[in-house]
Amino acid sequence: MRKLIQPARETWADLVKRPTKNLEDLEPGILETFKLVKEQGDAALLQLAEKYDGVKLESLLVTAQEIAEAESQVPQELKEAILQAYSNIQLFHTQQAEPVKQVETMFGVTCWRKSVPIDRVGLYIPGGTAPLFSTLLMLGVPARIAGCKELVLCTPPSRDGNIHPAILYTASLLGVTRIVKSGGAQAVAAMAFGTESVPAVYKIFGPGNQYVTVAKQLVSKAGVAIDLPAGPSEVLVMADESATPAFVAADLLSQAEHGADSQVVLLTTSEEVLQEVEQELQAQLEVLPRKEFAAKALDKSVGIVLASADEMLAFSNLYAPEHLILSVADFEELLDGITNAGSVFLGHFSPESAGDYASGTNHTLPTNGYARAYSGVSLDSFVKKITFQYITREGLQNIGKTIETMAEAEGLEAHKNAVSIRLKELNRV
Amino acid sequence: MRKLIQPARETWADLVKRPTKNLEDLEPGILETFKLVKEQGDAALLQLAEKYDGVKLESLLVTAQEIAEAESQVPQELKEAILQAYSNIQLFHTQQAEPVKQVETMFGVTCWRKSVPIDRVGLYIPGGTAPLFSTLLMLGVPARIAGCKELVLCTPPSRDGNIHPAILYTASLLGVTRIVKSGGAQAVAAMAFGTESVPAVYKIFGPGNQYVTVAKQLVSKAGVAIDLPAGPSEVLVMADESATPAFVAADLLSQAEHGADSQVVLLTTSEEVLQEVEQELQAQLEVLPRKEFAAKALDKSVGIVLASADEMLAFSNLYAPEHLILSVADFEELLDGITNAGSVFLGHFSPESAGDYASGTNHTLPTNGYARAYSGVSLDSFVKKITFQYITREGLQNIGKTIETMAEAEGLEAHKNAVSIRLKELNRV
Repeated sequence: MRKLIQPARETWADLVKRPTKNLEDLEPGILETFKLVKEQGDAALLQLAEKYDGVKLESLLVTAQEIAEAESQVPQELKEAILQAYSNIQLFHTQQAEPVKQVETMFGVTCWRKSVPIDRVGLYIPGGTAPLFSTLLMLGVPARIAGCKELVLCTPPSRDGNIHPAILYTASLLGVTRIVKSGGAQAVAAMAFGTESVPAVYKIFGPGNQYVTVAKQLVSKAGVAIDLPAGPSEVLVMADESATPAFVAADLLSQAEHGADSQVVLLTTSEEVLQEVEQELQAQLEVLPRKEFAAKALDKSVGIVLASADEMLAFSNLYAPEHLILSVADFEELLDGITNAGSVFLGHFSPESAGDYASGTNHTLPTNGYARAYSGVSLDSFVKKITFQYITREGLQNIGKTIETMAEAEGLEAHKNAVSIRLKELNRV
Repeated sequence: MRKLIQPARETWADLVKRPTKNLEDLEPGILETFKLVKEQGDAALLQLAEKYDGVKLESLLVTAQEIAEAESQVPQELKEAILQAYSNIQLFHTQQAEPVKQVETMFGVTCWRKSVPIDRVGLYIPGGTAPLFSTLLMLGVPARIAGCKELVLCTPPSRDGNIHPAILYTASLLGVTRIVKSGGAQAVAAMAFGTESVPAVYKIFGPGNQYVTVAKQLVSKAGVAIDLPAGPSEVLVMADESATPAFVAADLLSQAEHGADSQVVLLTTSEEVLQEVEQELQAQLEVLPRKEFAAKALDKSVGIVLASADEMLAFSNLYAPEHLILSVADFEELLDGITNAGSVFLGHFSPESAGDYASGTNHTLPTNGYARAYSGVSLDSFVKKITFQYITREGLQNIGKTIETMAEAEGLEAHKNAVSIRLKELNRV
């Protein structure tokens, strides 16, 4: 961990910069994959599963039998944990539903908006080092609350052609029945353009490697919505003298273990806390199974001593962290000052991993400084909000002149006429 | 208008397709513009104003004096109309504010989310054939309600170096004081990357020509958020036997006059209505000042006779129109069936132009079928929703096991340890 003591304000803009990664070189290969999937559909997915996942699949779709078997393979303790998390996530996201409120802006002019589920959504869950059933919960639960009619799940198979039982168990809880054994750019293409087994969806959610990231970017240019622009996961911890260095170190490591490009920032008002956290980091790192990832991320991490809580807040808002942990005594005093963050963890007993799994908040959050303008995934992400207006005869007589005057001033005579022709009729009767 | 009588369902997918326009050829030129703006800042904007807008500007920024003069140039009638529209838009958008609701998902685990304004937003208002002060209202009013700290307005100057007084008057009402005389890709670059006069913003809103469209796409790849992907404006009207053909024709023309690429679709259950609307179109078209645009758009438009209201609804949902007008007697019966649309106008006296200007709903809406997954601009567009969680000691004891079990099953030991290390401490005390 690089250490900085009260760096000058002018240097902050550089300190909050994330490393940029140019992925444009991947685009031609991914466009080739898109072409293959568009032309050959399922056959392309099968062929690419053989090539990239090293497995000759009998069927792209997970069968009911596979799901039933998975259920028996998931330990009872894990099932209970998943059910508890499900319940908490559901409770929190249900509260995000927006009631329909009719507003009569003028007499006879009534407007409202209504949340309507996105008909078909695609969920991508990566394979690789960890079976991310938690991400499936974070995407599937709000999709279900929203009432999306069709959920398609794509996830790459292991070399033996299977999907991790915890993923299948979670999918089954969510009532996701179309589970496709496909990963990478080809899975994104299948969800965007459709194949025999995969219906084309209107929005694609979920994390993935750089191929998935670029594929999502490319399909979003073609009109398929995506959840969020992607970037490496990150945490910023503010710690004052009241912080327990061992807890802070554990939080930093839980971010660092995600991968070598994870971003880890510690702000503190106490040089002593910084030193103690560093010692704890070394000690705790030693026993971690994912030590290698974490060590690489820590190498690039930074610990900064600042003069006051206000300075920590100013730096954090400039950084706009995905996860913000306030390991300080008086976190309530800082709450109103937080302007840019994805999700915030308050006090000494609210570790990031609570939100990653089970507190109820969503863990799909804006990285890379996107928290300046983007929100994390929520119930909103699975609906469109359609506006409605109903104008009575009297209402049009009230608002008509306003519309006519504005339309005329903008030089849009036909806009004006759509009102005038009606007013003429009303005045005639 | 092309006429189709009860086309077979298999043909619908083709009928709802919008023409695609490949704008990739514009990218290299626009990237050059970006480079120039990044390197030379204001000087580049001045240079490009001379090149593209044909004016040698003395100053990029509109002065207080120019604003004061504009106020005296706007006719009283237009001021009153703008104020009425402002009031209605404000009333409707204020209702979209989300109250903070704390949810205790488990005893001692409290979660909530809070809407926080995006600090700095950029509004782009095109020049050209019409001074779109209405669009400035549609973007500026919710930005003000949200509480965005800084609003930057970019709009191209006319050849004499001025901005239309109605734009300046509206900007002044909104309290927008940084008004930049700059248009096109260079204005987008200035808002995305910043210059001496233009602070870099986190999100860019507003319509524009194809250069603006592509520039917004390109900066969104670089992490600056944008309001919506762009496409030509469109309306779909459903008309039954109760519809007044002259009203329907006026609504179709108010869309068609936007430009030659405007999309206009009429669905009706009555062949007679279709014929009468066609006759009205010809008659009304003749007297329109923007006849040429409208005629070109109408040439590519389509009128379709379908068997029932249900069929009209099914077609409309497949098309996912930006604007949907229900010129039918029993529109209430159709409301629940609408799944894909931007904004909906109900009955015979709710023309689209009401929503374009003054009813209170927003007119920045998803085109090009994006209504399947995107919402129009609203108060939501100007805030981030940040989630918070506070877990007490007892709360962590309640939820700890769930987190540990899930983290372990995902192979993320450090995530688990962030909880375990705290539980150990709690059990020790």
